[in-house]
Amino acid sequence: MDKLYVIKIGGNIIDDENKLSSFLADFASIDAKKILVHGGGKLATKMAEKLGIEQQLVDGRRITDAETLKIVTMVYAGFINKNIVAALQSKNCNAIGICGADGDVILAHKRQHPVLDYGFVGDVDAINTDLISTLLNKNIAIVFAPITHDQQGQLLNTNADTIAQEVAKGMSSIFDVDLIYSFEKTGVLLDANDDSTVIPEINSSYYQQLKAKNLIFAGMIPKLDNSFAALKSGVGKVIIGKAENLPQLLDGSAGTSIVNE
Amino acid sequence: MDKLYVIKIGGNIIDDENKLSSFLADFASIDAKKILVHGGGKLATKMAEKLGIEQQLVDGRRITDAETLKIVTMVYAGFINKNIVAALQSKNCNAIGICGADGDVILAHKRQHPVLDYGFVGDVDAINTDLISTLLNKNIAIVFAPITHDQQGQLLNTNADTIAQEVAKGMSSIFDVDLIYSFEKTGVLLDANDDSTVIPEINSSYYQQLKAKNLIFAGMIPKLDNSFAALKSGVGKVIIGKAENLPQLLDGSAGTSIVNE
Repeated sequence: MDKLYVIKIGGNIIDDENKLSSFLADFASIDAKKILVHGGGKLATKMAEKLGIEQQLVDGRRITDAETLKIVTMVYAGFINKNIVAALQSKNCNAIGICGADGDVILAHKRQHPVLDYGFVGDVDAINTDLISTLLNKNIAIVFAPITHDQQGQLLNTNADTIAQEVAKGMSSIFDVDLIYSFEKTGVLLDANDDSTVIPEINSSYYQQLKAKNLIFAGMIPKLDNSFAALKSGVGKVIIGKAENLPQLLDGSAGTSIVNE
Repeated sequence: MDKLYVIKIGGNIIDDENKLSSFLADFASIDAKKILVHGGGKLATKMAEKLGIEQQLVDGRRITDAETLKIVTMVYAGFINKNIVAALQSKNCNAIGICGADGDVILAHKRQHPVLDYGFVGDVDAINTDLISTLLNKNIAIVFAPITHDQQGQLLNTNADTIAQEVAKGMSSIFDVDLIYSFEKTGVLLDANDDSTVIPEINSSYYQQLKAKNLIFAGMIPKLDNSFAALKSGVGKVIIGKAENLPQLLDGSAGTSIVNE
C-alpha cells in the first residue's frame, strides 16, 4: 500500500502568515500522497463581528445558524482554502481545494441532539474514496475545508478534527495512512504549561492510566479518543504535535505517537 | 469526440434563488459532459458595502484591490460556488466546485495596462485540460468560480465570460464543445428593449454589417467578439440566450447561435 499522510492544521497557524507559509513549505516538500485539513482560525469570528453577527458557543462548539454558516462557507471554503491552494502551487505542490460537497466526497447529516440544536452542523456518514484516490494518484494534494453536505442541498459546518479522522479512516482501506494533528503544542504533555514534558508514545492502556490520574488536559481528551477510534478503524499511526515540527512529526523524532498496543 | 457544454450563468440569476434553482435543475438534467461558470451577482458588492469597503469600477470592470480580492474569493469561490455544488448534488448531479488555482487548471497573469492598474485582475494564459478531462470522464460536472492564479501564490479576479471562453477553447482539442452564455435577455436583439427581436443566427459577415449600422448594443460587443474568437479557436458553436430557456438554447430552438460561416 502507498503511504498517505492526512494532516490537520490547527487554527492558530492559519492566523499567522509567516508560520502558515513555513508550514505549507514543509507540507509541499513531503514526497508522498498527502491531504491537508484546515480549520478557520479567528478569521470567521472577526468577519462575523464586522458584520454584526453574534456567535454562540456551547461546550466550545460554535452554534451554526444560517448567517454563521454563510460566513464559515465564505471564509473556510473560499478565502482560506483558495489562499492555501495558491500558496502550495507557488511551492511546486499541485493541490486542489475542496469541501465535502465537492464530488460528494463527504456525506453528512445535520446533528441530532436530544436537547440542543447545534444548527447547521454536520456529523459525517460516509467518505467517497474513489474521487479522493483518483486525485491523489494524479499526485494532486487535497486541501479540505471543514464543510460537508447532506445530499439534500444543505451545506453543514463540520469539525476539522473530525473531517481529518473520518478521511483518514475512510482512506485506510486503500492507503497506509498516518493521521497527524498539528497544532501549537509539542504533543500530549504531562504538564500542559511545559512543552518539554511531551509524552513520546501513548497506547490505550497507558492512556487509561493517565486519564485515571487526571493527567490528560481536558481539551486533549476528544483528540485522543478520536485517535484511538481512528486506529481501531485501520489508520496505521496517529501523531500529535507542533505544526512547526512537521518534518520531525512525520519521521517520528517529535510529537506524541498514538499507537494501538 | 464527446460533446461538452460550457455554460456561463449570468449574475442576475445568481441573485434570484428561485431562478437559480430552476436553472440548476435544467443544468443537472443535461445528459452530457458539462461545465458551469458563474459570476458573482450583487452579493460581493453587498458584502463590500457591509464591510465598508469602497468599490471602484472603470469601464464596467471592478478594480480589484487586496480587500476586494478577499471579498470576491470568499463570495465567489466560497459561498456561491459551494451552494451551487450542494444544490446540484441534491438534484442527482455529481459536481465539483473549483477555481483556477485548484489543480493549477487556469494559469493567469496580473493584467498589465499602460495607464490603469486594475489591481489583482487576471488575464488567462493556459488551461490545464488533463485534470478537467479526468473529472468530466468520471461524469463529474465542474463548477468554476471566476478566480485564477499566477503560480506565484497570487489569486486573481477574472471575468467569468473570459473563463468560460478560455475553458471552451482549451477543451475543444478533446471535446466537441458548445459554449453557452446564458443571461437575462432572450439572445442578441435588434431592439435591446424588445425580447421578440432576437436574431436566431449571426455569422461574422452579418455581425460586421450589424456593427456598421450600430445595431449591436454596446454591452453585447465584447461577448460577440469573444464568441467569434472562440469559434476561430475550435469551439463548435456559441449560443447566447435566456438562462430560463437553457434546454431550448441547447437544442437550438431559442437564443442566438454564433457561427463561423
